[in-house]
Amino acid sequence: MIGRLNHVAIAVPDLEAAARTYRDVLGARLSEPLALPEHGVTTIFVELPNTKIELLEPLGPDSPIARFLARSPEGGVHHLCYEVADILAARDRLIATGARVLGDGTPRIGAHGKPVLFLHPKDFQGTLVELEEA
Amino acid sequence: MIGRLNHVAIAVPDLEAAARTYRDVLGARLSEPLALPEHGVTTIFVELPNTKIELLEPLGPDSPIARFLARSPEGGVHHLCYEVADILAARDRLIATGARVLGDGTPRIGAHGKPVLFLHPKDFQGTLVELEEA
Repeated sequence: MIGRLNHVAIAVPDLEAAARTYRDVLGARLSEPLALPEHGVTTIFVELPNTKIELLEPLGPDSPIARFLARSPEGGVHHLCYEVADILAARDRLIATGARVLGDGTPRIGAHGKPVLFLHPKDFQGTLVELEEA
Repeated sequence: MIGRLNHVAIAVPDLEAAARTYRDVLGARLSEPLALPEHGVTTIFVELPNTKIELLEPLGPDSPIARFLARSPEGGVHHLCYEVADILAARDRLIATGARVLGDGTPRIGAHGKPVLFLHPKDFQGTLVELEEA
């Protein structure tokens, strides 16, 4: 069911500092910062040959990553995003196996303009999983 | 400098259970389990079209992931591994920028039979980074 690893998302307390790390220390190619107020984050993508690292900095008071950073102030891997061909079929298969889909199970439009769902970390070895319709 | 994301390593308390999650719930293709006593882990690879997820279960009393699981008993993302063309050149560049290479800076032979180095998570937004010579 899951296809490509679309991205690894890393929550960071300081996006400028993180960009310097990935650009100047690790020598990677970066996108420009993009503020996504409706998602409560500002993002920069680290563009690797086979996938992307998504650096996420909280934006606004209700950012979904603020609680993560309260627990891990230095930052850390926030979620892994896998591509699926059909997000509703994926959701139904997951629910049939007993896995928990976050929210009411209705895909929302994610940061890349595509339908996404998040799965409960307790059902995936402590890893928050995002599925994105490719 | 960094090239492909070679793998995302996830520490898990129960490799059989994790394999069931990735195979039966997420529908991915898995390798056979491989015990690596010299690295203190048993691994299963989740083979995605563009990269791999490396599931790691502790093996033996001195496993490097036992401490991680003591803090995060459900498991979680343990490290990200990026490919580099020349690991000694990468190391020298990292040291020149002030980043900390773990150990004495001498690459060791990693789980895939290639030279690897690990970088200090405090210098990389809370993420343990492995570099592997491709």
